[in-house]
Amino acid sequence: MRTVYWDYDRDVMKMIDQRLLPFEVRVPDYATYQEVAQAIRDMVVRGAPAIGAAAAFGMALAARQSRATDRLTLLRDLEEAARHLEAARPTAVNLAWGVRRLLRVAADEELESVDDVRDALLVEAQRLADEDVALNRRMAYHGAELVSEGDTILHHCNTGALATVDWGTALGVIFAAHEQGKRIHVLVDETRPRLQGARLTAWELQQKGIPFDLIADNAAGHFLRAGAVNLVLVGSDRTAANGDVANKIGTYMLGVLAKENGVPFYPVVPTSTIDLNLATGDLIPIEERDMDEVLRVGDQPIAPAGITARNPAFDVTPHRYVTGIVTEAGIVYPPFEKNLRAAVERAKQIQWSVDSGQ
Amino acid sequence: MRTVYWDYDRDVMKMIDQRLLPFEVRVPDYATYQEVAQAIRDMVVRGAPAIGAAAAFGMALAARQSRATDRLTLLRDLEEAARHLEAARPTAVNLAWGVRRLLRVAADEELESVDDVRDALLVEAQRLADEDVALNRRMAYHGAELVSEGDTILHHCNTGALATVDWGTALGVIFAAHEQGKRIHVLVDETRPRLQGARLTAWELQQKGIPFDLIADNAAGHFLRAGAVNLVLVGSDRTAANGDVANKIGTYMLGVLAKENGVPFYPVVPTSTIDLNLATGDLIPIEERDMDEVLRVGDQPIAPAGITARNPAFDVTPHRYVTGIVTEAGIVYPPFEKNLRAAVERAKQIQWSVDSGQ
Repeated sequence: MRTVYWDYDRDVMKMIDQRLLPFEVRVPDYATYQEVAQAIRDMVVRGAPAIGAAAAFGMALAARQSRATDRLTLLRDLEEAARHLEAARPTAVNLAWGVRRLLRVAADEELESVDDVRDALLVEAQRLADEDVALNRRMAYHGAELVSEGDTILHHCNTGALATVDWGTALGVIFAAHEQGKRIHVLVDETRPRLQGARLTAWELQQKGIPFDLIADNAAGHFLRAGAVNLVLVGSDRTAANGDVANKIGTYMLGVLAKENGVPFYPVVPTSTIDLNLATGDLIPIEERDMDEVLRVGDQPIAPAGITARNPAFDVTPHRYVTGIVTEAGIVYPPFEKNLRAAVERAKQIQWSVDSGQ
Repeated sequence: MRTVYWDYDRDVMKMIDQRLLPFEVRVPDYATYQEVAQAIRDMVVRGAPAIGAAAAFGMALAARQSRATDRLTLLRDLEEAARHLEAARPTAVNLAWGVRRLLRVAADEELESVDDVRDALLVEAQRLADEDVALNRRMAYHGAELVSEGDTILHHCNTGALATVDWGTALGVIFAAHEQGKRIHVLVDETRPRLQGARLTAWELQQKGIPFDLIADNAAGHFLRAGAVNLVLVGSDRTAANGDVANKIGTYMLGVLAKENGVPFYPVVPTSTIDLNLATGDLIPIEERDMDEVLRVGDQPIAPAGITARNPAFDVTPHRYVTGIVTEAGIVYPPFEKNLRAAVERAKQIQWSVDSGQ
């Protein structure tokens, strides 16, 4: 099951409500773009690719909601829906990207009737979602070459199907290795403060029947030193031209500990998140999130009232700790400066061939 | 206020109930050794020195409870109390040590009446508690030399008054620096899975008015790399002859990250926990605790039902990451093999002078 999808039997959009996982699996219907915008705002859906797909299907809904009988009126309605969706999470780059891609299709003058536009938008939203899945599968199979029979893999945060449309990035590699019949075991960092590992990654692995143990983030170093880990796989929100990687807080500690113990450390990243204009990771501003995420677990306070916390959401792992970077265009090794640029070029060609295959 | 103490006005023993902190401060009376044993079993009190003092005061209570009118009957009652107390946490070395020390005093043939024995036991229990405080203060003032005006100190777990009778080890150093008027700031690792940092260290710093921020354990590396930390202070449950340090899970990661970023890393350890017969830390077995500590926070599950977790309670930080070791006999620097041995010898003399000064 995909995180975000169109139900063609009932002609509605569906999204798994990630706020309720792992305690409840609810996949509500979305019949209006306003509901989709609210769901994005409320973090029913998270992860850049999943948000992009949700926004695209939201635009397809908007076309169906519109009572326009001529193309120009429909385009005006779609512009309004686009503004509404984009406002749901203004900093989410994929949100605007998904919405704009759908608007471009709607503006195609070869579409004659309003129903032609409606059909074309659903086709394009589906294509956007399918492309994300195809790209992740490709990344996953490249990464699976790194995994050997009997390996234990250390994993941070959630990088699975729930962060994308399906498969995921680092967790996608684990799924692919499992699918190839390799007997593997995963150590899952719980990933405080938001516990994406405990809540989401554990749930995804459980669904697939892949053996794993949850650990406190504090225990990762012990297992690395004990020789119990063969490979560390993480995601990356943003990768600089020199191979520095910005990812969920705690990733940097894993990079250093992996190197110190001679364990390979691979971020798994779609080339769309490699920023060749960013010279080094130190230029990436580190967002601090609400301190309540540290002071509470769920609704439960874990510290005295009236204290303060620091809550950096991301950290930067310098490229000297990075063994290689798994992309949809293959695994990239140092020198990253040169080889990431080549991978981004190769990926542009792959993207085209996936498009044309639809 | 001490963690464990005798209330001379009301002639009862008192202990702060650490299970309720930081949400409730309750300091119940203990009028019988059986209640004390139950409290040790229930982890009302934790930390080796605090447990040792609790057991000693428990023996003083046992002497008062006994209806014996002759010394031999009283000694038999005390032997029974000793067995009962020792069974409360059979692996706690300080528990047996405190109980045995009180039994030796009771056996002193110069004590003539049963009331002489009762008085002598309370005096000895008080002395044992006072010695722990004196030792911690001495360690704290040695360590405070490492702290400069304006420093930010990173701290792991709870090593404060609550783990001892008063002051503590690593946190004692922070208290001493603060008392000396140095303006300092503390970054407090929450210390999953049991959250001793969030619950206990945060509470102790708040009580003393020392500025601090709580952080997720995952964020420690980011702050070290950002140059925001001047000094890392941790405790140690057991230190090997070569300077390897066994301490709360997560300590090893801090040691590696501190060294990688050129930040000094000092365990603060009473010489009683230095085991000169243990060649290296790798000989220390790593206890795994109940996996529920990882799967839940308080009563609240944080992961899907039916999964498993690994929960090593301690890790070993090899001595190559240790800048120096703060003891009551001064700060010990490499080569640890030679210098720890000398410190243990020096400490024996200090111990004697504290004893004779009572």
